[in-house]
This record gives sequence, structure tokens and C-alpha cells, in this order.
Amino acid sequence: MPELRKDPILNRWVIISPDRGKRPHDFPAPTKKLKNGACPFCHGNEKSTPPETLAFRLDNSQPNTPGWTLRVVANKYPALRIEGEMDPVNDGLYERMNGQGAHEVIIESPDHHAELDLLPVRKIEDMLRAFKLRILDLKKDTRLQYILIFKNHGEAAGATLEHTHCQLIALPIVPELVEDEIAGAKRHFSLHQRCVFCDIIAKEKKTALRIVHQNERFIALCPYASRFPFEMWLLPQFHADRFEDCDVQDISLLAQLLKESLMKMQTALGRPAYNFVLHTAPMNGDNGQHYHWHLEIMPKLTKMAGFEQGTGFHINPVLPEAAAETLRDTNI
Amino acid sequence: MPELRKDPILNRWVIISPDRGKRPHDFPAPTKKLKNGACPFCHGNEKSTPPETLAFRLDNSQPNTPGWTLRVVANKYPALRIEGEMDPVNDGLYERMNGQGAHEVIIESPDHHAELDLLPVRKIEDMLRAFKLRILDLKKDTRLQYILIFKNHGEAAGATLEHTHCQLIALPIVPELVEDEIAGAKRHFSLHQRCVFCDIIAKEKKTALRIVHQNERFIALCPYASRFPFEMWLLPQFHADRFEDCDVQDISLLAQLLKESLMKMQTALGRPAYNFVLHTAPMNGDNGQHYHWHLEIMPKLTKMAGFEQGTGFHINPVLPEAAAETLRDTNI
Repeated sequence: MPELRKDPILNRWVIISPDRGKRPHDFPAPTKKLKNGACPFCHGNEKSTPPETLAFRLDNSQPNTPGWTLRVVANKYPALRIEGEMDPVNDGLYERMNGQGAHEVIIESPDHHAELDLLPVRKIEDMLRAFKLRILDLKKDTRLQYILIFKNHGEAAGATLEHTHCQLIALPIVPELVEDEIAGAKRHFSLHQRCVFCDIIAKEKKTALRIVHQNERFIALCPYASRFPFEMWLLPQFHADRFEDCDVQDISLLAQLLKESLMKMQTALGRPAYNFVLHTAPMNGDNGQHYHWHLEIMPKLTKMAGFEQGTGFHINPVLPEAAAETLRDTNI
Repeated sequence: MPELRKDPILNRWVIISPDRGKRPHDFPAPTKKLKNGACPFCHGNEKSTPPETLAFRLDNSQPNTPGWTLRVVANKYPALRIEGEMDPVNDGLYERMNGQGAHEVIIESPDHHAELDLLPVRKIEDMLRAFKLRILDLKKDTRLQYILIFKNHGEAAGATLEHTHCQLIALPIVPELVEDEIAGAKRHFSLHQRCVFCDIIAKEKKTALRIVHQNERFIALCPYASRFPFEMWLLPQFHADRFEDCDVQDISLLAQLLKESLMKMQTALGRPAYNFVLHTAPMNGDNGQHYHWHLEIMPKLTKMAGFEQGTGFHINPVLPEAAAETLRDTNI
């Protein structure tokens, strides 16, 4: 059973999920480049994955057979498991609990060579709709506190299979960075009675220096204190704390902006590896006034990972204003 | 001039240090593999670096000429600069200051092919002595709040030159992770009137499950909530908040334990890329009772960097107890 352990000094939880088959020399594990026939995410290989929890399918096709256009399955090597009890243990110094939760994979296309930014907008809408449906379903499990949805694209960004997919991890705790964001947003709200993210959007629109592009509902910008070169955030221009409250029209407009943002990034930077992470409000607690969901996109261009992970301190070699200008001026 | 910018939501500072020569397609930058003749850190190429701020030399050799055994120089492409004024600006939402500070390189050997763990113990003592001397010198500059010393070994760990070296960054702020460590240590001290790091060492010695090895003054262990597979911390077994208070004998015993730790890690794991980061008390503030300096070693075996940097959340596929056992049982 995987375990969640809390650092005795910091407010930091870690998932310890031993992969028993692995020995010291098996690291680092390269991205598996499987041929079409051998890839478990490909059309025709539905039996190689756990059964689907959600699929968008052509009429008359049966679950766990071909005929799907998007498929959500449990991760075959999950970092967390839904079964069992939490059994929290706290001996005063060390705190831990069973690694209870869900770990799912969202496969946006049955095509082994598909890349998300090159898919039609309606396929990206499907992906966002799947995020929403899985969040709404998992929210029924009251043990879960947070749902983390992210994409690792490319080996340098941590992808272990090259076939395009996103991951969903449902956690019995709220990740530290989300807690810190909520604390910062609360602090700003108590001082100004305004959402800090709404204030950022208003400020950015005054100068337009860091704005990449926008439509009537969403905006893409390079944040003022970007940690990574060409880091980009997509935010709703309206105040909303939960991604899953997006309606059909919001999802369509977000899909358009996401496709354009990824295409601009991929075109400007020579198709790098990248991550995106959805930041949305935790399941519980009243964060409606001060929190504002958003999507953070981080191309993987620099390799200071270990040092920066070890210190929480980032050195960014590209001015966010210059990054925004490059992305803004990139024709797609 | 580089800039320090504060995230408007989080208590997170970022160094924005534009490398003006670089264009979007110059990322990712690979580690430069320079031949002996072209490497600025090699014996005979002393004129290719800024002048030395410290060197250990054979008798009668002149500064900035051959004859050195260890050399400290300013970074030719510094993330921070010592000149100018801080000029802090805070417009209510966005906070920034000039990127004032120092960025130095500690070259442990004039030999292009040297690797730190394979150097004799007295060379590692020299490296630690250089850390101490540079900290003591830079502490005289009252604008500086923190000195960060770290090593990026290997391309995957962010090294841009393969010739062995460490880096020192002196900052006008305290990095968030150090602030969080101090806050956590203070919390523990106010509850128990004891140092949390001393408590951890005492607890670990009871089971020995996560101890790799130790000598009369220092201990190497895999922390309970390790973020990375085979992460290892070296701590003084005596309470001390500042690394620079180490005396000659401490430095000698630490050098021995560091060499053995790195050799064990390199032998067990097939010589991976790695980072180490020295965590020591900030220049100012009274942290003597509750803080405890230590060195964190992180082999670079997994690639979840972008996602984990984006969430502060780590998944570690190796049990710390299993990692400690592997390292403990590795003969060097």
C-alpha cells in the first residue's frame, strides 16, 4: 500500500509509492517508446489497461473495446489506491497515513501519434469535459480533499509513455502549494476585499505587457514572477474558484485559448516537453470569495530541477515581458 | 541588471536574470562538453574566468595563474550582481528589487576529469574550508541575508559545464524553503523546548532503519519523508545552526562522511547526476536554539520535475528505509 508521509519540519506531504519491481539500477527510467501494437493507450489495446471509468464513444461501441474517442482508466501503477482505510498515525514527530486516493489516466486520443495542441478544438473540449466529469464523480467520495489534474508531455517533463495523456490524482490532503495559494489569496482578500487573481488580471490589462492573448471569457499571460522561462497561466476573466463549475460555453472558449496557447508555445520554442497543472479549489472549505482557479503551463527548457526543488528558489533566464512578446508575436 | 520579483500570491521570490544573448530556440541548453584546452575551469585557463576571490595554491604561485589546487571565482554569467543599489519597489500587488548579491563558482580541482567523490578526503576538506571562508567574507556585506551553496553534478542536475564545481549565491532575501524550515523548527521548539533536527537524529538512532552511516560528529540518513529516491541528509550530531562555525576537526570528519556518502550513492546507483544543497542559518536573526544546519543530497533519478515544481507535491517510488539499506550495504 502506498503511504503519505509528512515532513516533520515543513508542512509538506510526500507520496511514498514503492514500485517493487524496481532496483537501484533501474533509475532513471526512460520514456517507453512502444510501437503502436504494444502501447496500452492505443486503439485496439483496451484490454491492456484497467477497465474504463469514463469514455466518449461512437454509437453502438461497447466499453473497453475500440470505438472510443477519449478514454479514462485507472493508472495500472497507481501512486494511490482507493481501497482500504486511511489509518492515520502520528507519533509526535512523524505523521503518516495510507496512500488512499485515486490515480487515473485521461487518454485524449486513440491515435498513438496525436499531440494535444494539434488536435481539433472539439477534442480539447472533450478533454476538459472529461476533467469536469471525473471531478464531479470523485467529489462524491468524502475521504478525498483535493483533485490534481496535470499533463506531462515529453520525456524531460516526466512522461513515462509517449502516447498523449493527462493524469488525475485524487488526494486525502490538500497539496502545500494550493494551501499556500489559498492563504495568500485570503490575506489579500482580508486587506482589500478583492480577489488577488482578479486584481492581477485587471493590472495586467492596463499595460498588456505580459498578456499573450485572450477571448471574452479567458486570458493567457506570463506571470510577473514567472519561475520558468515562457511559463504561462490561463485564467478565467470572471471570478470562479472551481474549474468544475465551467459550463459548456466556458469549456469551448477555454479549449480554444488552450489550443492557441500550446500551439504558440510549441511553435515558438521548437516543440519542447512541457507540463500543465490545473489549480482549482479543494473539495471542502469555503474559498469562493478569494480563490480563483487557473491552469499553469510550464515548458521544460531548463534543468535546474534538483537544486530548485531542494531550495524552492528559482532562477529564470527569460524576462516574462520578453516571453509574452515572443509568444504573442508567434503566428500559428 | 537582474531582478528579484515576489509572487503576488505566495511568499516566493524568483531571480529574473535575462541572458540577453539567448533566443527562444537556444533552450534547452545542453551541458557544454569542452575539451581540456577550452574549459575555463582547467589548469592553464585562469585568464578565461573573472579574477579569483580565493585560491589554495602551491608555494610561490601567483594569483590567476596555474599552481592552484582549489579556486573560487565570480560567475562569468552571474544571476545576481554585487554593484548598485537595491531599489526595492512595491506597488501593492507587485514587489521587486534589483538583483543584488554575489554569484561565485568553487572549482574543487584543476583536473578536467576529476569527480568530487573520487577526490582524496583532503581535497573535500579544502572544498568545505572554501565554503566556510567565502561565507565568513561575504557576511561582512550587511545587505546580504542568505548564502546558498550547492552543487549541480551532471547534465540532468542542471550543470552547464562538466568540469566539477560548486556554486555560491549570496542573496538579499532568505529563500522560502529556509524560512519555512525555520518556522517549522521554531514551532517544534516552542512546543517541546528542543531542536526538531536533534529530535529526528535521536529518533533515527533508536531504529537505525534510515541511517546510512555515521562517525563521532556527523550522521548520514535517508529522511522519513524523502521527496526523491535515495535522497540523503548529512547532519551534525551536535546542535549547531551555522555551518561556518565548524572547526578544523569538524570539517575533516564531515569531509570523510561526505566522500563516503557520495561514493556509496554513485556506486549503488550507477553514477547518476546529483545535486547537493547546504542548508544553514540566515545571516541575521537569532536561530541558534531551534535551527540545525545540514546538507541535502539528491540524486537525479526521476523526471517529474515540472509537475512537482508546479505543485510542491512529490511522488517518491523508493521507500526511504529501502534506500538506506541499499546505501548502507554498498561497499566502497
